[in-house]
Amino acid sequence: MYEGVVQDLIDELGRLPGVGPKSAQRIAFHILQAEPEEVQRLADVLTVVKQKVKFCTICFNVSEDAQCRICRDPRRDPSVLCVVEEYKDVVAIERTREFKGRYHVLGGAISPIDGVGPEQLHVRELMMRLADGSVTEVILATDPNLEGEATATYLTRMLSPLGLRVTRLASGLPVGGDLEYADEVTLGRAFAGRRSADGSEG
Amino acid sequence: MYEGVVQDLIDELGRLPGVGPKSAQRIAFHILQAEPEEVQRLADVLTVVKQKVKFCTICFNVSEDAQCRICRDPRRDPSVLCVVEEYKDVVAIERTREFKGRYHVLGGAISPIDGVGPEQLHVRELMMRLADGSVTEVILATDPNLEGEATATYLTRMLSPLGLRVTRLASGLPVGGDLEYADEVTLGRAFAGRRSADGSEG
Repeated sequence: MYEGVVQDLIDELGRLPGVGPKSAQRIAFHILQAEPEEVQRLADVLTVVKQKVKFCTICFNVSEDAQCRICRDPRRDPSVLCVVEEYKDVVAIERTREFKGRYHVLGGAISPIDGVGPEQLHVRELMMRLADGSVTEVILATDPNLEGEATATYLTRMLSPLGLRVTRLASGLPVGGDLEYADEVTLGRAFAGRRSADGSEG
Repeated sequence: MYEGVVQDLIDELGRLPGVGPKSAQRIAFHILQAEPEEVQRLADVLTVVKQKVKFCTICFNVSEDAQCRICRDPRRDPSVLCVVEEYKDVVAIERTREFKGRYHVLGGAISPIDGVGPEQLHVRELMMRLADGSVTEVILATDPNLEGEATATYLTRMLSPLGLRVTRLASGLPVGGDLEYADEVTLGRAFAGRRSADGSEG
């Protein structure tokens, strides 16, 4: 229907996550009318991102160098390791400014239905990082869903012989949420994990 | 928060229409993990589209040549001209396979609030196309909204001295829609434009 290269553009845009055929069309039309410099900037940053962005050789976080900013930062506590699924989880946790330790990015979660087992994740590299005994606590910050829980359970089993403290992020009611809208699993967890109102553990 | 070039990518993606900050992030993470070839394909098509896609010198439709496919096609009736706002309207009308004439793409609609008057549209070029008398009917297929109606009213006034047949697309109930959900303006137009049930007008 469209002139050849316009259709190519719509097709390529339609492959991006969350971009349906209608959005791909809308973006393509915007690009047709946009300033050439603006479009070139987007084209360039796409190329540059794939050239420059690597993964940290220690923690597999996104990095422009062999080691990421967090692994290079001497102020970050090397004895606490937070294990996450993806780079975006690192960003989310960094945004809280609560965590001063280091990370290990697994690159996903165990999901047999998608053919992802521990071998497809950076689990072996995690075990190697723990071998020298400098890490004393591992926080399993995988997603609170089926795959994340399966991954945390698997890692807990792998890590238990090492004699480390292995923790999991608290489950409970989201702050600012409404109790009546919480699903039963979340509400159940919130009860199970209840704490004394003066701050000491329940 | 993100590594420099990743943030650049998120910023550029966030400038696209309909891509909010969350979608920009999701697309950026997808690009980080995508195959370099796939990303390069998108970057290339962006560049190529801006290099190759021009606007038809006759009708201002999108074209890879000086004249678009429709203007070059001798089977298209040169006596009927369909005036639309944008390229995407040409595509929508072509999809119906109902129209065998030619187009004139205005490049927008009159919208004083956005600073778009007739001078910002290809109105002068339209008048020039009509000067030789070969066009006998002009179909005003602007959008059935405030700006589109204002544009059609303006063009009707401009064209009336030329003694052409000037028509407007029918307003009425969308096919497959539900009468009870039609807004009152649409329903009012559907009544005003009612046709005899055997197909003859009025």
